[in-house]
Amino acid sequence: MIYKDNIVALATASGAGAVAIVRISGPDAITICSDFFKSISNKKLEKQKTHTIHLGHIIDGNRTIDEVLVSVFKDPNSYTGENVVEISCHGSIYIQQEIIQLFLRNGCRMANAGEFTLRAFLNGKLDLSQAEAVADLIASDNEASHQIAMQQMRGGFSSEIAKLREELLNFASLIELELDFAEEDVEFADRTQFKSLVERITFVLKRLIDSFAVGNVIKNGIPVAIVGEPNVGKSTLLNALLNEERAIVSDIAGTTRDTIEDELVIEGIGFRFIDTAGIRETKDVVESIGIKKTFEKMEQAQVVVLLFSAEEFKTESQRLKVEIEKIKNRFPLKPLIIIANKIDILNASELDKLTSDFQDLHLLSAKTGVGVEELKNKLISFVNTGALRNNETIVTNTRHYDSLLKAFEDIQKVKYGLESGLSGDLMAIDIRQALYHFGEITGEITSDDLLGNIFANFCIGK
Amino acid sequence: MIYKDNIVALATASGAGAVAIVRISGPDAITICSDFFKSISNKKLEKQKTHTIHLGHIIDGNRTIDEVLVSVFKDPNSYTGENVVEISCHGSIYIQQEIIQLFLRNGCRMANAGEFTLRAFLNGKLDLSQAEAVADLIASDNEASHQIAMQQMRGGFSSEIAKLREELLNFASLIELELDFAEEDVEFADRTQFKSLVERITFVLKRLIDSFAVGNVIKNGIPVAIVGEPNVGKSTLLNALLNEERAIVSDIAGTTRDTIEDELVIEGIGFRFIDTAGIRETKDVVESIGIKKTFEKMEQAQVVVLLFSAEEFKTESQRLKVEIEKIKNRFPLKPLIIIANKIDILNASELDKLTSDFQDLHLLSAKTGVGVEELKNKLISFVNTGALRNNETIVTNTRHYDSLLKAFEDIQKVKYGLESGLSGDLMAIDIRQALYHFGEITGEITSDDLLGNIFANFCIGK
Repeated sequence: MIYKDNIVALATASGAGAVAIVRISGPDAITICSDFFKSISNKKLEKQKTHTIHLGHIIDGNRTIDEVLVSVFKDPNSYTGENVVEISCHGSIYIQQEIIQLFLRNGCRMANAGEFTLRAFLNGKLDLSQAEAVADLIASDNEASHQIAMQQMRGGFSSEIAKLREELLNFASLIELELDFAEEDVEFADRTQFKSLVERITFVLKRLIDSFAVGNVIKNGIPVAIVGEPNVGKSTLLNALLNEERAIVSDIAGTTRDTIEDELVIEGIGFRFIDTAGIRETKDVVESIGIKKTFEKMEQAQVVVLLFSAEEFKTESQRLKVEIEKIKNRFPLKPLIIIANKIDILNASELDKLTSDFQDLHLLSAKTGVGVEELKNKLISFVNTGALRNNETIVTNTRHYDSLLKAFEDIQKVKYGLESGLSGDLMAIDIRQALYHFGEITGEITSDDLLGNIFANFCIGK
Repeated sequence: MIYKDNIVALATASGAGAVAIVRISGPDAITICSDFFKSISNKKLEKQKTHTIHLGHIIDGNRTIDEVLVSVFKDPNSYTGENVVEISCHGSIYIQQEIIQLFLRNGCRMANAGEFTLRAFLNGKLDLSQAEAVADLIASDNEASHQIAMQQMRGGFSSEIAKLREELLNFASLIELELDFAEEDVEFADRTQFKSLVERITFVLKRLIDSFAVGNVIKNGIPVAIVGEPNVGKSTLLNALLNEERAIVSDIAGTTRDTIEDELVIEGIGFRFIDTAGIRETKDVVESIGIKKTFEKMEQAQVVVLLFSAEEFKTESQRLKVEIEKIKNRFPLKPLIIIANKIDILNASELDKLTSDFQDLHLLSAKTGVGVEELKNKLISFVNTGALRNNETIVTNTRHYDSLLKAFEDIQKVKYGLESGLSGDLMAIDIRQALYHFGEITGEITSDDLLGNIFANFCIGK
C-alpha cells in the first residue's frame, strides 16, 4: 500500500435517506472502526473475514450513535486495494455527520474528491482511463453515455491502446538495439512489418480520434438551436417531446430526478435545446443584437430547428421564405428542420397549399401530437450512432483525445521517417514520444498534476 | 414469513452520489437477484452464506448495467426478517433507475413508504414503537431528538410500557378468575397489592404524559418569537447565533445540509425563531392587523424575545417602557428576554443610564458578539432538560401520547373503582380498556388503518 493514512467520507448521495454509507479506507480502517463498533454478538471486527457484514452499534464513550451494519473488505480485496469498512447507518444527516466526525477525531482525515478511486489506481486496481470512466459512469444520465462509460470502465478502451503500445514498444526496442550496432549497419526491426504496424496504428488512432465527435456529442448531448418567436409554440413542443419520455420515469416513486427543462433523451442520446429568438428583419439596434446572438447560437448548434406557426405560413408566407433562405445561405452545411406547428388549425386545402409552397416542411401539431414522433426520428437520424450500435470503442474524454492527437502526430512523423529513410536514432525519438502519449492515456506515464486534475472532478466519497 | 411478494426500492438518498443502494426484500429476493447477477468468481448467489458480500455485474440479457457489490441477508437474519439483498451500485440516477426497473420487470414490485420496516414489525423484528422510532431517527437533526429516537428504537420506551402491561394483565386475570367464582365471594387478587400497582402505573403514566411537553419541544424545536422592527438587527443577531454553530459543520466537505435559515441548535436542543413585527401603538387599520398577528405568534411561542436597538432606548425610552409593560401584562407567564442590541454605539454613561432605567435588560451587540453567548445560555435555561440528561424515557410521538392519556383515564377509573368497592366485572372492563391502550403503543393491538397511517409517514426504501 502506498498511503499510510486513513480517509473517511460519505459515499452515498448527500441528504437524508433510509440508509447512508460512510466509507473508511486505509491501513487502519478496520481497527479504527472496531474501536467504536460493538457487534451484537461481541465479535471483534479485526478477526472477521473479508466481504462479511456485521450488525452492531457505533458507540462513542457511553453514547450510542446508531445501530449499523459494517461491511469489512480486506487489503487487497477492496475497491481501493486497502483495508476498507463501509458503515451502513440510518440516513439522517445528523447521524451521517456524527459518525464522520467521530472518525475524523480518531485517526481518519476527510477524503479528497475522488481519493478512493485515486488510491484504487495507485494500488493497481484500475488503470487511469478506467478510473476516469468511474466518474463518467456516475455522471451518465442516458443509455448511450452509460454504455460508453461502462465499456471504458471494463477496460475496452485501455486494452486497445495497451495492445498497440506493446507492439510499438517491441519495435522501439529493436530499433534502439540497432543503434548499439550502428557501425555494423544491421536491421533488427523488419521495416516492412514495422511499416504495416505504423499503418495499423494510424488507422486505429484515426478511428478513435474521429469517434470523439460522436463521443463528445453522446457525453454532453447534441446542441439543437430552436429558432422561433415566443408565440409559435416552443414550450408546447418541448413538453410534447418531453412528456412521453417522462412517463418511463414517473412510475418509480422515490427516484425523483433533477430535470433540466430543455434536455431530452431520444433512444438513449441526449439533446440539449437552446432557445433563441426569431430572426425577423429589423432596423432596431437592440433587436439586431438579438439576431446576432441567435446566429451565434445557431453556429454552436449541431442541428437547427426553425419553428413557425402554421398561421405565419398563411399570412406571412413571403417573409418566411426570405428568413429560411437567409439561414440556408448562412449555414449551408448545418442540418436544418423547418417546422410548421399548429397545423391543426389549417383545413385540407390550406395544408395542400402550404406543402406545395414550401419544400421539406415538417408538419406538426404539438397540441395534438401529430408529427412529434417523426420529429424525434429526424433528430436521431442526424447522429451517427453506427459506432455506438456496433460496440466500437468511442473516445469521450478530452484528455484522451488530446493524447491521441499527439500520438497521431508522432506516428505520422515515424511514418514519414520510414518513407524517407530517416536514421534510426532520430526515428527512435519519435517512437518514444508516441509511446509516451499512449502511456498518458492508461496511466503508465503520469504526474501529480495530471492526477490532481483528473480526480478533482470526482465527487467526494468516490 | 407473512408476505409472499418481493419489494424493491432505492434505500439511499435520492440524487447522484458515489454509491447508491437498491434493496430487495421478500421470499425470492436472493433468487431474483441471482438471475441478473454474474459474480466475478462465478459463484451462485443462492449458495452463499448470510451477511456476505459479492462482487460482480448486473446483466440484463447481453447488456451490462453496472459493476456492483451484492450483500446477501437470509431469512430471518435481515432487517425485514425476510430474504434481503442490497445491491450497492454506482450512484448515477440513470443506473439506479435501470436496476430498479430491471427488478420491477422481473418479479418485484415497488415498495410502499416504510414497507421494509412494516415487514420487520410484522415479522416480529421490532415492536411498533421501535418501528416508529426508526422514522424519528432518520428525521432527527440534533443531539436531543437523536438521543430520544435512539433510546426508543433500542426499546427503552416499549420495555417500560410492556412491563406495566404484564403486571396489569396478571391482575386482570385474577380479577376475571374471581368472576368465575362469584358466588363464593373470594378475592384472588390482593386488593392492597393491586392498589399499589395502580398507584405505580398512575405515577409512571403521569411522568410519561408530562414528558411529552419536553419531548414535543425536542422533536419539533422550541418556538421563539422575536418581536422587533425591521431595523433593530434581527438578522444580524440570528447570523451571530447561527455562525458559531455552523462552524462545526463547515469543515466536513461533502456533507452539505439543508439549512432552515431560522432554526438553530443550542446544546442539542432545536430552537425555531419566528419573526414578527414590533407592536408600536398605531391607529392605522392595516398596522393593527399586523399587531394582532404578532400577538398570535407570541401566544404560540414558548419564549418571547423583545429586540430593540440601543438607539431606541436612548431616543424613545418612554414608548419602549409602554410596549414592554403591555407585553408583560398580556403574557404574564411567558418567559421573556428583553434585548438592547447595538450597545457598541453607546458610551459608558449612556450604558449606565440604560441599565438603571430598565431592569432585566439583556445587553448585546450582534455585530461585535458581546452578549451572544449569554443569550444562548438564557434560551437553553428555559428548557427543562432534566429528564433528557437523566436518560429518562421521553414521549415524543402524538399517537403514544394519546394512548397514554386514554390509559391514564382508564386507570383512574380502576382506581376509583377500587376505592369505591366497585364490582369485579365492571372493574375488569376498565382494566381491559387500559390494557388495550397499552397494547396500542407497542403494537400488540393494531389495525390495518393504524399501520397504514404510521408507515405512510416513512420514506420509501425504509
